[in-house]
Amino acid sequence: MAHIPTREDLPGIRGLFAFRPETARPLSELVEVLLHDKSTLTPGERELIATYVSSQNDCRYCQTIHGATAAAHLNGDEDLVRSVKADFERAEISPKLKALLAVAGKVQKGGRQVLPEDVARARAEGATDLEIHDTVLIAAAFCMYNRYVDGLGTWAPDGMEWYRDRGQKVADHGYVAALKSYVSQTA
Amino acid sequence: MAHIPTREDLPGIRGLFAFRPETARPLSELVEVLLHDKSTLTPGERELIATYVSSQNDCRYCQTIHGATAAAHLNGDEDLVRSVKADFERAEISPKLKALLAVAGKVQKGGRQVLPEDVARARAEGATDLEIHDTVLIAAAFCMYNRYVDGLGTWAPDGMEWYRDRGQKVADHGYVAALKSYVSQTA
Repeated sequence: MAHIPTREDLPGIRGLFAFRPETARPLSELVEVLLHDKSTLTPGERELIATYVSSQNDCRYCQTIHGATAAAHLNGDEDLVRSVKADFERAEISPKLKALLAVAGKVQKGGRQVLPEDVARARAEGATDLEIHDTVLIAAAFCMYNRYVDGLGTWAPDGMEWYRDRGQKVADHGYVAALKSYVSQTA
Repeated sequence: MAHIPTREDLPGIRGLFAFRPETARPLSELVEVLLHDKSTLTPGERELIATYVSSQNDCRYCQTIHGATAAAHLNGDEDLVRSVKADFERAEISPKLKALLAVAGKVQKGGRQVLPEDVARARAEGATDLEIHDTVLIAAAFCMYNRYVDGLGTWAPDGMEWYRDRGQKVADHGYVAALKSYVSQTA
């Protein structure tokens, strides 16, 4: 049971969004820009960054739903998601995404951990200023979402079915649309 | 120099907001709801929570600007801000705020660090569900803002003058108004 009373049918961040629609709106709009809107990083790449940071923060709900959303963008390749979480340097992803995941991993430990050489590696692999910016902000934002979800003791569904279904919907329609499907006061 | 090219006249998060107005808007709206809008926690109490978390994350820009904003709400009492950062359990603040700062301190370390007894202490001191929710989200959000500001290597002004001036303006008019004063594309 969560530390505060939330709707029993809504796991993870969804119960918190329904509890506090005023903060749900900017929190959903932020993740919509970062993970779903147009970008030179694919939605699958950005969801992998979110999934990796959430796994480093040991947040079961976030790493599973964003892992499922990543897989929905990547032809259902859940093995690739698992390999990124386990050891992204050996995963079947581009050198640029590896360099960006290394930056994200530093951000997860603390902002001051990011060194000029981490950024230089990403740039040498072709990352733009905007991609570096967005990677840092995605990693920082998931240090928030993960703490929000676990700090209030929310519950997470077992198995993969719930996550695959919701991940596909988010991949198709985005985060703001998902929010509006269960919180009416955010229109 | 920051890791990405930002406007030289804008330190800390302000340079990042000008670089990426699409994310600046939800990031400003979130902090407006959490720290500036109407709440049963005073703006001074909420700024102290933000300041404490930022100091635990060793983010110089954030702890100084939010400390100055807290002081602006607290009749200029910068000594109180310092005492909260140094040892909030011995500071001249309410038992309820001490309990909420203890929750915020756990969130800073990681979401799973928050235990039922931490929440029970806050509740025993009179904290409501909404105050507990907002405390966890303020702490989580500053784990994001701090990492964003330091992860991209932004600069922070020396001395207190810049912070006192901007802190007073934010205390008076809020965060969204502050953003609109230097980023035109966010109207």
